[in-house]
Amino acid sequence: MTVQYFTATSLDGFLADANHSLEWLLQFGSEDPSYPEFIREVGAIAMGSSTYEWLWRHHLAPDAPHPMAWPYAQPAWVFSSRTLPVIEGADVHFVRGDVRPVFEAMQATLRERQAAGHAAPNIWIVGGGDLAGQFHDAGLLDEMIVTITSVTLGQGAPLFPRRIATPSLSLKAVRQVGPEFVQLTYTVPKG
Amino acid sequence: MTVQYFTATSLDGFLADANHSLEWLLQFGSEDPSYPEFIREVGAIAMGSSTYEWLWRHHLAPDAPHPMAWPYAQPAWVFSSRTLPVIEGADVHFVRGDVRPVFEAMQATLRERQAAGHAAPNIWIVGGGDLAGQFHDAGLLDEMIVTITSVTLGQGAPLFPRRIATPSLSLKAVRQVGPEFVQLTYTVPKG
Repeated sequence: MTVQYFTATSLDGFLADANHSLEWLLQFGSEDPSYPEFIREVGAIAMGSSTYEWLWRHHLAPDAPHPMAWPYAQPAWVFSSRTLPVIEGADVHFVRGDVRPVFEAMQATLRERQAAGHAAPNIWIVGGGDLAGQFHDAGLLDEMIVTITSVTLGQGAPLFPRRIATPSLSLKAVRQVGPEFVQLTYTVPKG
Repeated sequence: MTVQYFTATSLDGFLADANHSLEWLLQFGSEDPSYPEFIREVGAIAMGSSTYEWLWRHHLAPDAPHPMAWPYAQPAWVFSSRTLPVIEGADVHFVRGDVRPVFEAMQATLRERQAAGHAAPNIWIVGGGDLAGQFHDAGLLDEMIVTITSVTLGQGAPLFPRRIATPSLSLKAVRQVGPEFVQLTYTVPKG
C-alpha cells in the first residue's frame, strides 16, 4: 500500500490559479496519458473540500458547464468542515479533522475490498496541497507524483505548503508525457 | 543572441527559502554538471540586488563564510535602487529602472566583445524571479532553463511571479542531471 500525492502543477508550483481556475491545465486537452496506469492501482481516494467543490461546480452540479458523472469507482474520503452537496451514486465519506483516524478507516476499507477481490492497493491524495501536507505531517505520505505543465501562474493554490529539504525527496523517475508535460516521481522521507 | 533565465528552484517553485537561504540547494554539494556548458555561451549577465547581496554576504565580503573571487568573467549588470558594495576586479555595471535601455547597453557590449573575439552570444538573467519577469514583460525573455531540485520549501522567493499560460511555454528539453536534479528548458512565447 502506497500513499500517493498525484497532481498536475504549474512550473512555478501552483495547483490552480488565483481564481481557482484550471483553464490553464484544461487548455492542453487530452487526459494525462499516465493516468489510466496510475488509477488502476488506486483502491481509495482522499480529497479536500476545494477539490470536491471544483468537481461539483464544473462537472457534477445540475448547471455544471462540463457535465459528467462522478469519475471514481473507488471509495472516496472528502475532508471538509462544511456541508457539501451529495452526489448520487458516488461512494463518498465526508470527514473532518485529523487525517490519522481517516487513514485507518481507508486502510480498513482497502483490506475489505482486497478480501472481496478488488486488489488495487494504493491511496491517492487528489489534493489540495494542504491535505497532502497533513498526510505528510502525520508520516503517512509515501510518494509525490507531480506532472509539471508548461505554464507559470505567478500566484494561486500552492502545490505543497510544507518544507521537505533535509533529508530531501528522492527522485525515482522522470518522464516526458506528451509535448507539454514532465512527470516527476519522488519518494518522501519519513520522520 | 538568446536571453536565458537559468536557475535552480525547489519543486514547489521557490528560489530561496523564507530566510533567503540556499542551504537546501548547497546541501547537494557538487555544481550543476550542466553549468560549464551553459556558461560557455554567456556573454553578459544581469542580476537583481538580492542575488548580488547574497553573493556578497556568502562569498565576497571580507567576513564571508565561504570566501571566493567574483565568479564571472563576463560583464554583469546589477539592478538596484540601493548603493551596493563594489567588488574589486569585477566588471559590474550598477543600474536601475526599466530593463529595456539596460538590455540595449548589454547588446552593445556584446557586439563590442564579439568584435574583439569574445564570441559567447547569450545573456543570462541570474535572478531573482521578478527581474526575469521584467525582461519577460518587455518581450525580451527567450528561454527558461529551470533545474528542479528534490526539495519543497513551502514558502520563499518565487521562481517567476508572472503568468505565462495562453500561449503556454514550449518544452524544448528534459534531462535528469545527477541523482537529484531535473533540468527543463522552455521557449518563452512573445507578445
